Amino acid sequence: MDIPQQVLSHHLAPLFLQGTFGIEKEGQRIDAAGNIVTTPHPTAFGNSIRHPYIQRDFAESQLELITPPQSTLTDTLRWLAAIHEVVLRALPDGEYISPFSMPLRLPPEADIQVAQFDSPEDVAYREHLVRSYGKYKQMISGVHFNFQLSDDFVRALRPAGADPVEHRNALYLKLAKNLLRHQWLLIYLLGASPLVEPAFYPTGQKLPDGPVRSLRVSRHGYVNRGSIHVSYASLQDYVRTLEDAVTSGQLIAEKEFYSPVRFRGAKRARDLLTHGIRYLEIRLFDLNPFAPYGIELADARLIHAFLLHMLWMDTTAGDQDIALGQRMAQETALQHPHAPSPYQDEGLQLLHNIQRMLQDLGADPDWIALIHTRQAQLHDPRTTLGGRLLLQLQNGGGDDNVHRFHALGASLARQYKTAAYQRPYALGAFDNMELSTQALLADAIELGLGIELLDENDQFLALSYGEHREYVKNGNMTAKDAYIAPLIMENKVVTKKVLERAGFNVPRSRQYRTLHAALADYPLHATRPIVIKPKTTNYGLGITIFKTGVPDLADYRQALEIALREDHEIMVEDYLAGTEYRFFVLGSQTLAVLLREPANVTGDGQHTIAELIAEKNHHPLRGDGVRTPLKKISLGDIEALQLKAQGLNRSSVPAKGQKVQLRENSNISTGGDSIDMTDQMHPSYKALAAGIADTLGAAVCGVDMIIADHTQPARPDPASWGIIEANFNPMMMMHIYPYKGQSRRLTRHVLAMLFPELELKIPSGLTN
Amino acid sequence: MDIPQQVLSHHLAPLFLQGTFGIEKEGQRIDAAGNIVTTPHPTAFGNSIRHPYIQRDFAESQLELITPPQSTLTDTLRWLAAIHEVVLRALPDGEYISPFSMPLRLPPEADIQVAQFDSPEDVAYREHLVRSYGKYKQMISGVHFNFQLSDDFVRALRPAGADPVEHRNALYLKLAKNLLRHQWLLIYLLGASPLVEPAFYPTGQKLPDGPVRSLRVSRHGYVNRGSIHVSYASLQDYVRTLEDAVTSGQLIAEKEFYSPVRFRGAKRARDLLTHGIRYLEIRLFDLNPFAPYGIELADARLIHAFLLHMLWMDTTAGDQDIALGQRMAQETALQHPHAPSPYQDEGLQLLHNIQRMLQDLGADPDWIALIHTRQAQLHDPRTTLGGRLLLQLQNGGGDDNVHRFHALGASLARQYKTAAYQRPYALGAFDNMELSTQALLADAIELGLGIELLDENDQFLALSYGEHREYVKNGNMTAKDAYIAPLIMENKVVTKKVLERAGFNVPRSRQYRTLHAALADYPLHATRPIVIKPKTTNYGLGITIFKTGVPDLADYRQALEIALREDHEIMVEDYLAGTEYRFFVLGSQTLAVLLREPANVTGDGQHTIAELIAEKNHHPLRGDGVRTPLKKISLGDIEALQLKAQGLNRSSVPAKGQKVQLRENSNISTGGDSIDMTDQMHPSYKALAAGIADTLGAAVCGVDMIIADHTQPARPDPASWGIIEANFNPMMMMHIYPYKGQSRRLTRHVLAMLFPELELKIPSGLTN
Repeated sequence: MDIPQQVLSHHLAPLFLQGTFGIEKEGQRIDAAGNIVTTPHPTAFGNSIRHPYIQRDFAESQLELITPPQSTLTDTLRWLAAIHEVVLRALPDGEYISPFSMPLRLPPEADIQVAQFDSPEDVAYREHLVRSYGKYKQMISGVHFNFQLSDDFVRALRPAGADPVEHRNALYLKLAKNLLRHQWLLIYLLGASPLVEPAFYPTGQKLPDGPVRSLRVSRHGYVNRGSIHVSYASLQDYVRTLEDAVTSGQLIAEKEFYSPVRFRGAKRARDLLTHGIRYLEIRLFDLNPFAPYGIELADARLIHAFLLHMLWMDTTAGDQDIALGQRMAQETALQHPHAPSPYQDEGLQLLHNIQRMLQDLGADPDWIALIHTRQAQLHDPRTTLGGRLLLQLQNGGGDDNVHRFHALGASLARQYKTAAYQRPYALGAFDNMELSTQALLADAIELGLGIELLDENDQFLALSYGEHREYVKNGNMTAKDAYIAPLIMENKVVTKKVLERAGFNVPRSRQYRTLHAALADYPLHATRPIVIKPKTTNYGLGITIFKTGVPDLADYRQALEIALREDHEIMVEDYLAGTEYRFFVLGSQTLAVLLREPANVTGDGQHTIAELIAEKNHHPLRGDGVRTPLKKISLGDIEALQLKAQGLNRSSVPAKGQKVQLRENSNISTGGDSIDMTDQMHPSYKALAAGIADTLGAAVCGVDMIIADHTQPARPDPASWGIIEANFNPMMMMHIYPYKGQSRRLTRHVLAMLFPELELKIPSGLTN
Repeated sequence: MDIPQQVLSHHLAPLFLQGTFGIEKEGQRIDAAGNIVTTPHPTAFGNSIRHPYIQRDFAESQLELITPPQSTLTDTLRWLAAIHEVVLRALPDGEYISPFSMPLRLPPEADIQVAQFDSPEDVAYREHLVRSYGKYKQMISGVHFNFQLSDDFVRALRPAGADPVEHRNALYLKLAKNLLRHQWLLIYLLGASPLVEPAFYPTGQKLPDGPVRSLRVSRHGYVNRGSIHVSYASLQDYVRTLEDAVTSGQLIAEKEFYSPVRFRGAKRARDLLTHGIRYLEIRLFDLNPFAPYGIELADARLIHAFLLHMLWMDTTAGDQDIALGQRMAQETALQHPHAPSPYQDEGLQLLHNIQRMLQDLGADPDWIALIHTRQAQLHDPRTTLGGRLLLQLQNGGGDDNVHRFHALGASLARQYKTAAYQRPYALGAFDNMELSTQALLADAIELGLGIELLDENDQFLALSYGEHREYVKNGNMTAKDAYIAPLIMENKVVTKKVLERAGFNVPRSRQYRTLHAALADYPLHATRPIVIKPKTTNYGLGITIFKTGVPDLADYRQALEIALREDHEIMVEDYLAGTEYRFFVLGSQTLAVLLREPANVTGDGQHTIAELIAEKNHHPLRGDGVRTPLKKISLGDIEALQLKAQGLNRSSVPAKGQKVQLRENSNISTGGDSIDMTDQMHPSYKALAAGIADTLGAAVCGVDMIIADHTQPARPDPASWGIIEANFNPMMMMHIYPYKGQSRRLTRHVLAMLFPELELKIPSGLTN
């Protein structure tokens, strides 16, 4: 089949460029010095056999991180980054992930713990590997690149009358064969495992003299024992020869066949004949130590273009070509990283052809340019990945290459972990979404839930565990809330009626536009603690409080007149003395209580207010208040007025311990402080908040209450407490990352509510 | 206690004017000729013993309609109207409600069926009444006016140290005593039971010679046998003397005491001493035959002012005064309706005092004016209610008063029933709310659910049955829907993904801003039935349909160019051939299917299009489309353009049977026709719609589908059917009152969903 002709004449380019991509990336857990650790796989990730993103490979210490399949490489890399951030943050203190394919500082072989799985088959298989290869050989890590052609493309390309499965298999077989023939170029460009400590190899094994491009893919690396011959002549031959290798005992199982490319789509190779190949797993790639997560987008795009070209080529490699390709691969792998390739011309031609293909397909010019830059790497091997790595080692000083290798690896590993803590509240790859959704995603990744981003702009996720599927919008809007609950909360009149009827302290509030109307209602207010105020108020102007009622009508009248001077509409409200707290209720339980304090600084007797603000704004949680949990304090007109009302200005130097309030309102979004009070709050108020949420039928609810004394039990009278309002979709970040006090990981509670089968044990406070 | 001084000096006027009001209104079911019917109480109202609004009194034929307590008289009257509308529409054809207190055309006494209750006590009590008074006497109807003072007022008036219950009892006792003394004035003004057919009375009873003010409250009416003396000197005396009357056998039970005023708040009179009187039941009032529902707001406001004044007066009637008052009441009741009152001066003084009281209280001037007009009625008895009724009888012609009385009663009854059918889709008293909420309220009243209007502007109701409480907003937004369901439906992208994943036919739609981008996706569209169109389209300009794909790229390109001429953004969508239907799904069942046709008229070969529109707009369901289920067809610019495109104008005369389409869109809100297709639709599509709602987690959902042939079973391919969209809070009125086809009473299904314990049997289609 002339694929270029088919694609171009039938305008299939967009379909050809589509595909599904996945990355599996292994990596050893190490300590700060680069030693592989002997601690067990972190329990945070649960039973790793079922975990879709975070698994163990051969050893307990070897992490295997797996992206869910994505339709763009950009998304695949986002997932890889997100999974890494979650894992790095969940690792114990002093543990890191090695950036190198070859293991750093091996422990005594006996200390290496083979991954502890429940299934006897898994245990037996790993024991076989130990016997066949030794434990050290199994400690090598790499990147597997999974690639699936678009189904629409495969269908569009199918000749009339052709069997769909055979047609598809033929495409993947051609791709695989040509890849085996030309794999050397990818090793040349991306190989990055130059050396390893001598202890790695059994005594007596002859090793390369100096650094090489890729120990890992060389015969010294992660390859099968002996000479196993699996034929790619046809899929039937492939299945037969692979089965023969198992029958003859050369392999214990089909999965022991360490080919650079594997056919995926069935558990047993034989089933590929009927089910067909679904995708290819390319296992060629060393970890890129300069990429925090083992592979860069530019590398991935190179690989994608390379794979497309393997199909696009007008020839298909035969058995001889494949054998040649394998020899060229071994040769390339074992060359010095700075040695020029003997196959430079072939490589240049191949890159040229890939570029032309992309041009013919009308591909993104950036992509074409990216292939173009690889030509220079054929001219100068020091610019390849392996070449750059070696340069870095040589620049490292000292004379022991292995020592420098270890030091560089440990240093990069520490650096990547530090980066993951730069903004611990965020999930960098999904920073286009709200922080609360990022926190929820991080928890969902850690717990191994299935995740589908239905609409990133709308913070709309589908989460799943087995067959159980749930939807979440904006972090905590779910199916657990009845539709009527937010509708009730949206309507303040209805909320008040519903809560009042259920016996909660709902403050009365009446609005008036005339003195006459307000005076007529005097008897309604005379005996209650009330506050009379303009409907909109600035800096408390026009507000009068009567804490024990207004026995004298003249006083009442005067307060009305004062308020009416500030606004044409005034309010007479029940006065609630005390402090406002936010109660976060989920599933009939108050999980967090927060005190919000208006933006403020505390004096030290030396610095000006402006300086104190600048200093407070250095806090790592403060920023724009959207991409950070807290907002930097401004020093604008409103703050200046607030200072002026206190006889201060930006240059005033408050006394040591003097608290200066910079805003009247306590919103976090105007620089307020969030202070966790969950443990300090008397339980009676937490029970009230939970009861309020229940009455409203809300599964998730933010209840704002005024409380006279949070250390004393609630009393029935309104002087003890009162409801300000109840909010659906309450904010979570201010509880997860408070300015002071304990963190409350509410997103985890949301997941526990949605998936009770996870039986999550949630620590009372996670400090992250 | 000097109440005026207390109220005025403590500014209690607004509290004094507050109160709680309820009306109980009896009425005989009659046929068109005025004969009391012998059919059983309508089953629509269920077991009337538990029904809060619609009960039977003594006889099966005697309806007792009860408003829930309201805080304003306006609301009380709204409820009375609403309950009447519901009852009148539920009565069998040819049944009406008598507007008169005295029964019209009695059946033989044996044919009168005593109300059939389950409780043996109720049956025994009614049997006693039959023995003591005969059945006819029990057929009299009246209005009971329940009045409760504001609790805040009672509390504010309480002297320091006074017992709260004794204080409250004293207030009600004063009010009751003064009412007994002055009741004659209300009888004079509002009495309206002048006569009855002679058969009503046992043979030998001496009857009034001619018409009187109020037979009903006279000794010939609904009064106890013999001389029962109950003392009002104190509440203790009241209880003692009432109990004595029962002990001595004068009364079978306390409730047989037919006093003009009853103390309410306890089942047994004795408990009033401890629990206290909660409210008064005033039983003085004849049905006002000129009020469609037995009492007018003006009468109710007169009664309220009168009652307030009974408390306001500086004297309290003693035993002698009460005895005098009762004699004056009897005298007034038995006077000729056109005879002047012998107590005119007292009456004028009383009205004057009531007016002054209202002025002192700062009451609404309309209310004061309303009292003022009553003075004229003391000067001219013919303007009283009884006086007007007699004038009407005299004007009726013929010489038999009783005959004319019957004819007038029957005529008014028919007139009031006709009025209740004027806008059968509305509940007039709640016409400020949406029609769907009105329909839901009507059903809730009929079924006897507790109803609280939480926010009329927001269509927010609380409904209850026993302890079970549910909230409804906009007719069908309830707790049965999970919150996430409307959020999914609100987001078209998410809806599509969720439905597509579940395997439903979701048409693909892509938008393009450049020819280049659209051309690049050609292979995605080439083999599908597609429609290419401008994003916004008028009159089908720029639309090209390819029903079997676009094998030729040139055709595709041309269609894109045509569309791009009309809009800068174009869409390439899967083409769904067929007709759009709306499926209304509730609780996993498709309850209604509707076809919406764009505004249209069908020619008759004689009339112009303008004339045909005018004629079609006469349809009783057509109006503004907000206060009516359907909208009148306009003949504006859009319709004119649509006609022009067909080579027609407003003066064209279409041929007989020629259908002329006046709009492109099929919205009911632009004059479209709604056609019920529930029974015609193949069940496979109804199952699909139900499945779509289930997939979205929606309890109530409006699913719009395109269907190629609604008579053929659905096939999996998109040529058979496809989803347009899914809507939460779907419209109900267009199904309840379609232009053509069967009505589907969806509001009843909403109630059945909320209150499964009602076990509603809903007819497959109610035609109303």
